[in-house]
Amino acid sequence: MRTLEWDEPQQALRLIDQRLLPVRLEFLLCRRVDEVSEAIVNMAVRGAPAIGVAAAFGVALAALRSSATDVLDLLADVRRGAESLLAARPTAVNLAWAVQRMMRVAEMPLPTVEKLQLRLLAEAQRMAEEDVLINRRMAEHGAMLIRDGDTILHHCNTGALAAVDWGTALGAIRLAHEQGKRLFVLVDETRPRLQGARLTAWELAQYGIPHALIVDGAAGYFLRRGEVQKVFFGADRVAANGDVANKVGSYMLALAARANDVPVYSVMPTSTIDMSLPDGDLIPIEERDPQEVLGLQLNGDVVTPPGSAARNPAFDVTPHELLTALVTERGVVYPPFVENLRRVFEAG
Amino acid sequence: MRTLEWDEPQQALRLIDQRLLPVRLEFLLCRRVDEVSEAIVNMAVRGAPAIGVAAAFGVALAALRSSATDVLDLLADVRRGAESLLAARPTAVNLAWAVQRMMRVAEMPLPTVEKLQLRLLAEAQRMAEEDVLINRRMAEHGAMLIRDGDTILHHCNTGALAAVDWGTALGAIRLAHEQGKRLFVLVDETRPRLQGARLTAWELAQYGIPHALIVDGAAGYFLRRGEVQKVFFGADRVAANGDVANKVGSYMLALAARANDVPVYSVMPTSTIDMSLPDGDLIPIEERDPQEVLGLQLNGDVVTPPGSAARNPAFDVTPHELLTALVTERGVVYPPFVENLRRVFEAG
Repeated sequence: MRTLEWDEPQQALRLIDQRLLPVRLEFLLCRRVDEVSEAIVNMAVRGAPAIGVAAAFGVALAALRSSATDVLDLLADVRRGAESLLAARPTAVNLAWAVQRMMRVAEMPLPTVEKLQLRLLAEAQRMAEEDVLINRRMAEHGAMLIRDGDTILHHCNTGALAAVDWGTALGAIRLAHEQGKRLFVLVDETRPRLQGARLTAWELAQYGIPHALIVDGAAGYFLRRGEVQKVFFGADRVAANGDVANKVGSYMLALAARANDVPVYSVMPTSTIDMSLPDGDLIPIEERDPQEVLGLQLNGDVVTPPGSAARNPAFDVTPHELLTALVTERGVVYPPFVENLRRVFEAG
Repeated sequence: MRTLEWDEPQQALRLIDQRLLPVRLEFLLCRRVDEVSEAIVNMAVRGAPAIGVAAAFGVALAALRSSATDVLDLLADVRRGAESLLAARPTAVNLAWAVQRMMRVAEMPLPTVEKLQLRLLAEAQRMAEEDVLINRRMAEHGAMLIRDGDTILHHCNTGALAAVDWGTALGAIRLAHEQGKRLFVLVDETRPRLQGARLTAWELAQYGIPHALIVDGAAGYFLRRGEVQKVFFGADRVAANGDVANKVGSYMLALAARANDVPVYSVMPTSTIDMSLPDGDLIPIEERDPQEVLGLQLNGDVVTPPGSAARNPAFDVTPHELLTALVTERGVVYPPFVENLRRVFEAG
């Protein structure tokens, strides 16, 4: 089962509605580009690689649903769709990367409306297939860093659900497990959206990997007691110097790991690396609806007093000094990141 | 309104059931020592100073409810009650401190059963009154550290609800506000029991102090952006070298503050300082029921897959190097903590 795929009979993007997991496994059918944008905004689909591929299908849907009869009108519709996708979430650069790749295809000279529609759909499908291969290669590089007997602390969800399949950091953990390494995963619950508690715990159970959920604030306790050998998380955008924007809480986790000499690995496809930004302070950080923080229930009651305010940054930036290495589909990148990331890009 | 007080007509300890706040304000009447132990175990009453005073009343109740007709039998009942209280929660040393103080009174030579009962009740009431004065003095010392315009990041609940009145860190913030200093408080929600979201947000609203709730993992984001001038939290046990055991998450918060040159203050009565322990690694850390982590609901559904495991340490240890100062009722203690804590104790 894939997180998202093209539904040929329906001519629509079919994706797992991740807001309902693990209570219910339901699918969402996006027939129009605005439905894809909406699914990205409300996090029915989330995870940097997954939203990249979803956006690619979104561009294709903008073309397929267009009523334009000539190519220039079609292109205008596609551009409008691309704009709405780009505005959906600002931090994860895979979204922009995927839309730009689709737009390069859209802007190639083409004779007919129908041919352009088909070419865009083919490109989105190619990106979905590539995503699986790229993720699998990341998993191979990442799994080599994992040793038999390791306890790994993991933040957010970076598994198959965060991509078309496999995922980033959790893909490496899954592959290491399949290679026969005995692992234990401490799963950060990852407030406010609880991707760890909802999605990562669910995936680990499917794979048969032993694990225990912890609150985000408890990571330091386990790190300081020497119970953790490695920290793994994904990335939503990496600057040219190796600074990593990732799910909020990653920065404090990396600080606690570093203070206790535990290596920290961030795993991402090279499409997540934004060579145009010299450092992570330039990465735009999305602040989301305070209701995500305020809406928590215990025993059926919303716990926060009515009228309370909240602030809700969805990401934070881990400075590169705290990272042991970045794991990409082209290999493991060690410091100095400025030089070594450039080399990875030139090789690509 | 006090967090806990002696109900004279009922001859029982009356306390706010903090598990229900802020949804409902209800009181719990503890008529027997085992009801006090139970209220401490299930966190109907929580906060280091509050559980100390509750335990003192628990010892008094063990005496008052005893059917013993001679003093030695009474003392045996009181000792049994004291044992059950001591076993209720292992980390906060105020519990042991309060029980020991009560037992010293119990073991003074006394002529009659009734006189011993009354003396124990009087001692518990004295401790409740002292707690208010001590907390008020801590607040005065702490408030001097707070400047007009400060944004303060606060972990867990350390307010009036954590003591008989005033509280520790939040008492200092409340007094600074009453002194006319303009403040903003970023409130860590403090998973898993959500003392920040439930109790601190509620108290701050009562006091009229502007604040916003954040998830625990977001503290690093605000610290790194320079939006925070001070970090304040309480303590459950302090070792002789200044290492502080406090609500889980405090350690990561202190690391993030230190990495961004933001001062960190831990506020506690001297009864929280355990001079018998040379360092914080010797402090016993309570691991609580995994269900506290697993039971989270979103939209009415428990989010974690059934059968999931969790680990749930209630506290962690912040090494003294990360602390700017310890604030006690006898003044602000700066490093070197070993020498200066000893001096504070000798002065006491």
